[in-house]
Amino acid sequence: MDRLRKHIEEIVKLTDDEFERVKSFFTSRRVKKHQYLIQGGDAASYEYLILTGVFRMFYLDEDGKEYIVQFAGENWWMTDYQAYFGDKTATLHMLCMADAEVLCTTLNGRETMAAEFHKMEHFFRVKLTNGYVALQRRVLSLLSGTPQQRYEEFGKLYPQLMQKIPKKYIAEYLGVSRETLSRLYSR
Amino acid sequence: MDRLRKHIEEIVKLTDDEFERVKSFFTSRRVKKHQYLIQGGDAASYEYLILTGVFRMFYLDEDGKEYIVQFAGENWWMTDYQAYFGDKTATLHMLCMADAEVLCTTLNGRETMAAEFHKMEHFFRVKLTNGYVALQRRVLSLLSGTPQQRYEEFGKLYPQLMQKIPKKYIAEYLGVSRETLSRLYSR
Repeated sequence: MDRLRKHIEEIVKLTDDEFERVKSFFTSRRVKKHQYLIQGGDAASYEYLILTGVFRMFYLDEDGKEYIVQFAGENWWMTDYQAYFGDKTATLHMLCMADAEVLCTTLNGRETMAAEFHKMEHFFRVKLTNGYVALQRRVLSLLSGTPQQRYEEFGKLYPQLMQKIPKKYIAEYLGVSRETLSRLYSR
Repeated sequence: MDRLRKHIEEIVKLTDDEFERVKSFFTSRRVKKHQYLIQGGDAASYEYLILTGVFRMFYLDEDGKEYIVQFAGENWWMTDYQAYFGDKTATLHMLCMADAEVLCTTLNGRETMAAEFHKMEHFFRVKLTNGYVALQRRVLSLLSGTPQQRYEEFGKLYPQLMQKIPKKYIAEYLGVSRETLSRLYSR
């Protein structure tokens, strides 16, 4: 849980007592490559803080075609938020791409932390703000971006993940062919 | 400012003193149809709460082609968040589509309110959460949706705006031709 404290304290400082309380809302879980953290159709009961590992979050259409909404690596918070906040079943899948350790918190735990500690309410707001800005950029890049622009955007959003994610999935995320992606890499 | 109080109190209750302080961070502004609230290249100094009117937020590419990121109507909060939170110049334009009245708050004002009042920190977190979920849906619908699914998604996101926005812009937002949109309407 030292990692959790360090992660939170990048934004707000906690006393030992406060952190004892905060950490009681988290459980730890190990996930192997190819395992699902969330499967479409299941309840999205947890939000995950990724300590190590890489995940991809995607939607499967009726023909089984996969659409990658986001990747998530170290220190990202991730879940199917529509399902998590709306208490609905997940429409997205979250699959482990490299052995991972995550911390899990329920919506109830998250809201209790935020209600008890103004500092934690602030922490979650800052995290959401960053996520919101990243998604607004993703919408823009999907609407208007050329492959080159999408690739550069990807590099900004996931600087540490470029090397860890197989090119096949990066191409899928960018909506380009593998040949186009190879050309972009070689520039 | 009664409207502001009512809007905030849908989520958190404020005392009269608290509201007096909160409202001091807002200024009111009227905007005419065809006026810009934000122009790309300018600073995005304000976040806007729309009391009346309709706006569209879009990106212009080098050839002058317009890409609509979002519409915003009554009770929506809107700005170019990447620019607003990151203190950068705007890359998006926000144009008034029907005479409007908005409340404006600076980032400094917003952060001061949130720091002084745990309730306001909570309020802004809830608003961001809703916005985040809406954007995650927009990404998904851009990636995988059929015109029919995008149209239905649009109806869920903007139930009060369907009648107010000219069909030309709805078609542009959905990425479909006007003929396709007419077929969707008639179903």
